[in-house]
Amino acid sequence: MISRVLAADLHAHVGEQVTIAGWLHRRRELKSVTFLIVRDRSGLAQAVLSSRLVRPDSSTAGLPEETVVAVTGTVVANEQAPGGVELTDPAVTPLSGPATPPPFDLYRPAVTAGLPTILDHAPTTLRHPVLRAGFEIAAATVAGFRAALDGLDFTEVHTPKIVESATESGANVFGLDYFGHPAYLAQSPQFYKQALVGVFERVYEVGPVFRAEPHDTARHLAEYTSLDAEFGFIADHHDVMAVLRDAIAGMAAGVAERAGGALELLGLKPPVVPERIPEIHFADAQELIAAEAGWDPRGEPDLSPEDERWLGDWAMREYGTEFLFVPGYPMVKRPFYTHPEPGRPACSNSFDLIFRGLELVTGGQRLHRHADYLAALAERGQDPAAYAGYLQVFEHGMPPHGGFAIGLERWTARLTGAANVRQVTLFPRDLHRLSP
Amino acid sequence: MISRVLAADLHAHVGEQVTIAGWLHRRRELKSVTFLIVRDRSGLAQAVLSSRLVRPDSSTAGLPEETVVAVTGTVVANEQAPGGVELTDPAVTPLSGPATPPPFDLYRPAVTAGLPTILDHAPTTLRHPVLRAGFEIAAATVAGFRAALDGLDFTEVHTPKIVESATESGANVFGLDYFGHPAYLAQSPQFYKQALVGVFERVYEVGPVFRAEPHDTARHLAEYTSLDAEFGFIADHHDVMAVLRDAIAGMAAGVAERAGGALELLGLKPPVVPERIPEIHFADAQELIAAEAGWDPRGEPDLSPEDERWLGDWAMREYGTEFLFVPGYPMVKRPFYTHPEPGRPACSNSFDLIFRGLELVTGGQRLHRHADYLAALAERGQDPAAYAGYLQVFEHGMPPHGGFAIGLERWTARLTGAANVRQVTLFPRDLHRLSP
Repeated sequence: MISRVLAADLHAHVGEQVTIAGWLHRRRELKSVTFLIVRDRSGLAQAVLSSRLVRPDSSTAGLPEETVVAVTGTVVANEQAPGGVELTDPAVTPLSGPATPPPFDLYRPAVTAGLPTILDHAPTTLRHPVLRAGFEIAAATVAGFRAALDGLDFTEVHTPKIVESATESGANVFGLDYFGHPAYLAQSPQFYKQALVGVFERVYEVGPVFRAEPHDTARHLAEYTSLDAEFGFIADHHDVMAVLRDAIAGMAAGVAERAGGALELLGLKPPVVPERIPEIHFADAQELIAAEAGWDPRGEPDLSPEDERWLGDWAMREYGTEFLFVPGYPMVKRPFYTHPEPGRPACSNSFDLIFRGLELVTGGQRLHRHADYLAALAERGQDPAAYAGYLQVFEHGMPPHGGFAIGLERWTARLTGAANVRQVTLFPRDLHRLSP
Repeated sequence: MISRVLAADLHAHVGEQVTIAGWLHRRRELKSVTFLIVRDRSGLAQAVLSSRLVRPDSSTAGLPEETVVAVTGTVVANEQAPGGVELTDPAVTPLSGPATPPPFDLYRPAVTAGLPTILDHAPTTLRHPVLRAGFEIAAATVAGFRAALDGLDFTEVHTPKIVESATESGANVFGLDYFGHPAYLAQSPQFYKQALVGVFERVYEVGPVFRAEPHDTARHLAEYTSLDAEFGFIADHHDVMAVLRDAIAGMAAGVAERAGGALELLGLKPPVVPERIPEIHFADAQELIAAEAGWDPRGEPDLSPEDERWLGDWAMREYGTEFLFVPGYPMVKRPFYTHPEPGRPACSNSFDLIFRGLELVTGGQRLHRHADYLAALAERGQDPAAYAGYLQVFEHGMPPHGGFAIGLERWTARLTGAANVRQVTLFPRDLHRLSP
């Protein structure tokens, strides 16, 4: 490796001659001195040159911002410098050709570009510390998710994204030519993760899912990262909610432990996940809204965004938390593999988790008996032959089971307050965007 | 959750009445007693019924293997039982409908079915402990890979699998219709991981890659899981080899720590990764083979499988290790972004890692200067316009960098001795297989 000290570690080298390396984040020329700010993965470091050293013919003079440089100098304490230290009498070596200026000034604390500019030039614009911070939070989230489920004895799996059938859900699918046969991109690992409960009992998968989503909204992507879990030997969906609670708590802990710098930069605190997330049955939620909110959602098969916002506020008032489970969703709005509520067959043993007034996670108990699958498909007028591979799983002994799926980008958007999920997607794919 | 004790924990409950739950792995009826072996995620447990209890009209009598059951009984020490304990006077409750028999007897220690049967019925056949073990090793591998790179300050990323351009490599690509535009499935995250070196310095990704691979061999898949890493501020490819060594050591440690039971079941030990993996330059390797092996590979632009096997044996004789780096591959066999060897431009700063006589990993240093990319494309007669989005990255300051990609299934196959990579792929995709 190029021998160097990271910006964040400079303070431990006062009095020594060291080399730092990174991107020339900013050059500021004053009358008698020039400041060079160098950005590396750990943060920013300052080097100070007497202006007499910055001769017009020196290589340093011509270096534009974003040029990659190594800077060797003596570490001196200076309370005004970032991190309380700076490099003096530096020698500057460019490591790449001089950079073309980025589409906006990356050194300004605030992001001064709009979303299209940010996305069109993502490889460069994401270098801005504020934009990068969201992805540090996302990475920490995934690590926390895995740690929580590893601790519960889950097995990580990788299931195919090219699938034979487009029948899983009502979502729109992308089709492709597979060696002359029609095939599709998986909308979720749902069928596979259920099948693998039969093998491992408890599985999770972090991977891409694909939706040929014709809606052009701030919440929808054609490709996103899904954090999926599925597990067996549950009593009912309350066990799924309990494991989801632990997964979310793990995600929040992961962010707190691994992305402290990003949180600080964005002025955020990780969410507090209560030991037990409160719940309100779907039917009770509609009654409550009808009684208190000023509108009447009863009879609707789903919660509206207004309903979710109101329930989020209610949970905060009533329980002091940003999280609320809503179990008991109507069966008509849930996929055929959903387990109905015993004694109340129009309702389901499935739930949404509302976080900050918006649906974050859907999950629930699934059917596990072969005969129940056949009945569920018959009731919906669907041909079981289209699901032959999937139904086979339930002929060979499956325990009561359930699971959930968390959209990583949606979680990160809520955490960072991003108005558009694209802000926290490295290279988003949507109706209008296929590059970079 | 269904209240139960795992099979592996039964020994701590001698004298207590407990419930276990899992799949009826085996029922063995003797004259006076019937043994039920129950399989759960932790292993096997035995329950013993006096045959007088197994009346023809009892539900227990009719339960076929693979039925999911809960069994409540008293834990009694018995040296002959698996784990040294068994459940006596058990009450058996089926949790699913009676199971259809699996395509082969899952309770026999050896797998008695051929690969097509195993793959056609994967959701059931993978329940066989020997078949499942490979996937426990795979999951442990990935955890070890991440732990090693997390320890080196890498950031995990998720890059798009639907891409605009099919130009990255010579590999065959799958095309799809993307809202009316042509698009492709990514053959690797190569371009994205390089771009993200500009953002995070050090990145890794674990995700699916897609190859419309027309070869029907034991080593090729149309979709597989790639462990990708890329990082900046390297001196040359030796830094990439050093990080790869640490990643491989982490994978081996992950397997040892997390998949001990699977290793034991398969009679395996995790590989020993030396502190420094020996290396031999591609040209020197050919000279050595010509001098000692009995054939002359000099002038060939690649190593043949025989060359690799011979070199693997040579490394074992010479250095006592199953690992060998071969840097200096001819530029003609490497992609255009490969960094040439200084002073020897026909050779590259890229390498293969040979493990047990077979190429396991390819990696190397990449070009990092914009002008070098333009020259490399011109030399190959390629139009830079086709790479506009990618080339943009190098106009904005990129450090010297490199990386590698490890095929998870290929690694697991080598570790377990699987003759066919499909044996260690949950639901393989190839020229002839798109389901389950």
